[in-house]
Amino acid sequence: MTVRVDWRASVALVGTVVKWLTVPLLAPLAVALYYGDGGLAAFVATIAVAFAAGSALERVGDPTDLGAREGFLMVALTWLAASVVGALPYLFAAHGIPGVAAATAPGSALGGPVNALFETMSGFTTTGATVMEDISFETHSHAILLWRQLTQWLGGMGIVVLAVAILPELSVGGAQLMEAEAPGPSIEKLTPRIAETARALWLAYAGITLLEVVLLYGLHRTGHAPNMGLYNAVAHGLTTMATGGFSPEARSIEAFSGIVQWVIVPFMFAAGTNFALIWQALTGDTDALFGDSEFRFYVGVVGTVTALLAGLLFTGPTLDVAVGPIAGNLEASLRHAAFQAASIVTTTGYASMDFAEWGAASQYVLFIAIFLGGSAGSTGGAVKMVRWLVILKSLKRELFVTIHPEAVEPVRLGGRALDEDAVRGIYAFTAVYFALFVGATVFVAIDATRIEESLTALEVMSSVAATLGNVGPGFGLVGPMGFYEFLPATTKLLMVGLMWVGRLEVLPVLVLLTRAYWKS
Amino acid sequence: MTVRVDWRASVALVGTVVKWLTVPLLAPLAVALYYGDGGLAAFVATIAVAFAAGSALERVGDPTDLGAREGFLMVALTWLAASVVGALPYLFAAHGIPGVAAATAPGSALGGPVNALFETMSGFTTTGATVMEDISFETHSHAILLWRQLTQWLGGMGIVVLAVAILPELSVGGAQLMEAEAPGPSIEKLTPRIAETARALWLAYAGITLLEVVLLYGLHRTGHAPNMGLYNAVAHGLTTMATGGFSPEARSIEAFSGIVQWVIVPFMFAAGTNFALIWQALTGDTDALFGDSEFRFYVGVVGTVTALLAGLLFTGPTLDVAVGPIAGNLEASLRHAAFQAASIVTTTGYASMDFAEWGAASQYVLFIAIFLGGSAGSTGGAVKMVRWLVILKSLKRELFVTIHPEAVEPVRLGGRALDEDAVRGIYAFTAVYFALFVGATVFVAIDATRIEESLTALEVMSSVAATLGNVGPGFGLVGPMGFYEFLPATTKLLMVGLMWVGRLEVLPVLVLLTRAYWKS
Ligand SMILES: [K+]
Ligand SMILES: [K+]
Repeated sequence: MTVRVDWRASVALVGTVVKWLTVPLLAPLAVALYYGDGGLAAFVATIAVAFAAGSALERVGDPTDLGAREGFLMVALTWLAASVVGALPYLFAAHGIPGVAAATAPGSALGGPVNALFETMSGFTTTGATVMEDISFETHSHAILLWRQLTQWLGGMGIVVLAVAILPELSVGGAQLMEAEAPGPSIEKLTPRIAETARALWLAYAGITLLEVVLLYGLHRTGHAPNMGLYNAVAHGLTTMATGGFSPEARSIEAFSGIVQWVIVPFMFAAGTNFALIWQALTGDTDALFGDSEFRFYVGVVGTVTALLAGLLFTGPTLDVAVGPIAGNLEASLRHAAFQAASIVTTTGYASMDFAEWGAASQYVLFIAIFLGGSAGSTGGAVKMVRWLVILKSLKRELFVTIHPEAVEPVRLGGRALDEDAVRGIYAFTAVYFALFVGATVFVAIDATRIEESLTALEVMSSVAATLGNVGPGFGLVGPMGFYEFLPATTKLLMVGLMWVGRLEVLPVLVLLTRAYWKS
Repeated sequence: MTVRVDWRASVALVGTVVKWLTVPLLAPLAVALYYGDGGLAAFVATIAVAFAAGSALERVGDPTDLGAREGFLMVALTWLAASVVGALPYLFAAHGIPGVAAATAPGSALGGPVNALFETMSGFTTTGATVMEDISFETHSHAILLWRQLTQWLGGMGIVVLAVAILPELSVGGAQLMEAEAPGPSIEKLTPRIAETARALWLAYAGITLLEVVLLYGLHRTGHAPNMGLYNAVAHGLTTMATGGFSPEARSIEAFSGIVQWVIVPFMFAAGTNFALIWQALTGDTDALFGDSEFRFYVGVVGTVTALLAGLLFTGPTLDVAVGPIAGNLEASLRHAAFQAASIVTTTGYASMDFAEWGAASQYVLFIAIFLGGSAGSTGGAVKMVRWLVILKSLKRELFVTIHPEAVEPVRLGGRALDEDAVRGIYAFTAVYFALFVGATVFVAIDATRIEESLTALEVMSSVAATLGNVGPGFGLVGPMGFYEFLPATTKLLMVGLMWVGRLEVLPVLVLLTRAYWKS
């Protein structure tokens, strides 16, 4: 049998994406020139490699007639290729370029190829899990740490197109629901209209990012955020709307004032909202947003998690944090509760403090929240709101039908009866998601017995859930103030795969492993 | 609104079951008389309580007109009530009966009410997880340890009726498939025909049990199994067909010769087979058995797990076990592989050695096997073969439809197109099962930080999976040579709930928590 997929066309399009990476790579290059603390040669070399490799890949085939199958392949390969090319600056900075430039970050954890790949995949998938224990300009330079932030912002742009324009066209895992209630910008086929939608959404994405940068820097200029200079304002703007979670500050958002933490909360919330709805709201149709049943469910979930955490923090034992005691302090309890609820539910992964130090009940709530995820059509990962909503409604129906076997009861979303195929697709997705979680957790639990550190169950489970769900930090050693470097290389490579598969909604990647995809 | 469920009828029927418990309680009473090493007063007192309590409950209502809803409630309450009454001998033996009899097992771990309830629920649900570190006649008496075995045999009888006669009538969680390919003994309603089917299946159940007892005792009489006396032969017969896994030997089946281990393998395999199919095969229709697609899948799964384990054991590092080295020994590798594969896949939970000492890859295979489960209509627990088969077929269909969106492709089982409701029900079951697993695992991981022992991820996850799936042993401290006593009481109570919910196929218990069940 012959291969029925025009993989050459897919590869050629990946080449175009890789070639275009040279443009954003100019940003850290400029930063390297400005600060002069390292990374210049690394970015010049990476731009050269990206241009050469991208051009070579472009010649593999003709991407003018791309079908859905080629789309699957192209999307999956794009994240892989970008992660490989995007890892080069880390490697060049750590090892230098023989005969051309010396290493500018010789002590960097990113000098290991597996570590560098992990960090870049974590960036482009907007996961935010890091292998770096030492996050500092002294070791890494301003340019390298900005590139790390930028990978998330670029990854977020990719996700926006993927989630709003491409996935809904592929009726896999209930993805057709992703645009269910968003009658606005939607696409019929992989046609030029994608470009149109993408432009609109990218405009919203970039605009809100800019607004956040301006607000954060404004706080700095007005004396409310001493350490939120322009670099930090830009760096955090790049990773909020992407639900990324990387920070050039080792202690994440704990490093900043309470008012900075409050300002970031609504931006995380927006990042977990369907971008098509945001676009509609920005263009005047706020009814579309507030009438959307996924959005209402999302508000309810974030509100419930916030309320639970606030109650637990307010009444809990006093925690020793830089910004003062939390127990008994209503503002601080609400702030950390709202921040952590928004951060984990949307899968951003920022931390306003080390929640691994919280009480058992709070940790339990947060751990479960790792599986929730943002809205469909957002940059958030994990299972996602619309799927949980449909599963809850469907389970209710299932139990109702058990009691009333004669009843014929469709699952309704926003007043509309759902196609049973979509319901089944969502179950299939969730079953595979949890099967992956369990399988990977057992692998890591056993694999990690080879290392010196003894991992707790929470550490093992949360590291898997946080990478598969593109959340970032887990608990304990892999918590918001921790890092992933000490894990065995095999576990880190598995997690690279989990971040990749999780980001691409699992099933589209599994499709690539079927014979039918290639042959029939 | 008024309650629409005739709960009084359900309670009355539970009373009848409790009253009938007095009959099997005569067996340990007879054993106590024969051995004279304790437990006599405990069983006399329990029989009196069971008779009185059962009679009192019977007067609560009139069970002549039982509908499906009353059936749900009755089934759920029966396992609870039996576990409470069944725990009494343990408590009476540990504490004595004030003014009547002294304690005969004063040092027993079963003296704690939570421990006693855990052990009894573990018995009646055929889970086989134990709180006892010290399993010996010296501490507990022959009668008490026989009652422990007998709870599993009785639980198995209950499961046979539940699985083959009651659950298929309730179209919940794909349960309607449980009899899909078994056109033989099936029931239209909760009518006297249940009694007819139950009698046939119990006959097979008791007959195969008897055959195993005879074979095991025969090995003893012919000098092939020195420690497999009549007591041990009966004790293990009672817990094999029930996929129970309790053993009066602290080291489980490792205590016996290789030939005993070989003989038990096919009985575990039969225990994980649909009893309706066994009945048909015994009455001459072997085609029904070998043509059944679930049975063929089951054979394939057990065969694959056996082959994987045998390869790993044969080529692995030498293990130090009583019966000699395993690596390089084909017979020993095959024996332990087949034994452990059959034991874990069917959720029996016996161990021919401490598999927690095996290599990482073998442990990985076994851990995943904890989720597999026996066939529908067997006494095996966990997710069960037919559900995995349907999920695999449905996922394959899901991926196929992704590539060929125009295709309309039903899921086929045994040549028959499945109802989409059944497919969805199976997904719903599996999603809830894994959600319970994750939720309970996080609870236990946090709850267990209160105790002295530091649990590994494998210990936490396997203890939850092994109780929810009615498997019994997990890994490490809760492994086949370990026990559950040291866990916090809250965790043990959660596990009592997991064993109960897992045994009753999860969804029928969830139904009881809905308003619609009680009111509409
Ligand atoms: K993230
Ligand atoms: K068992």
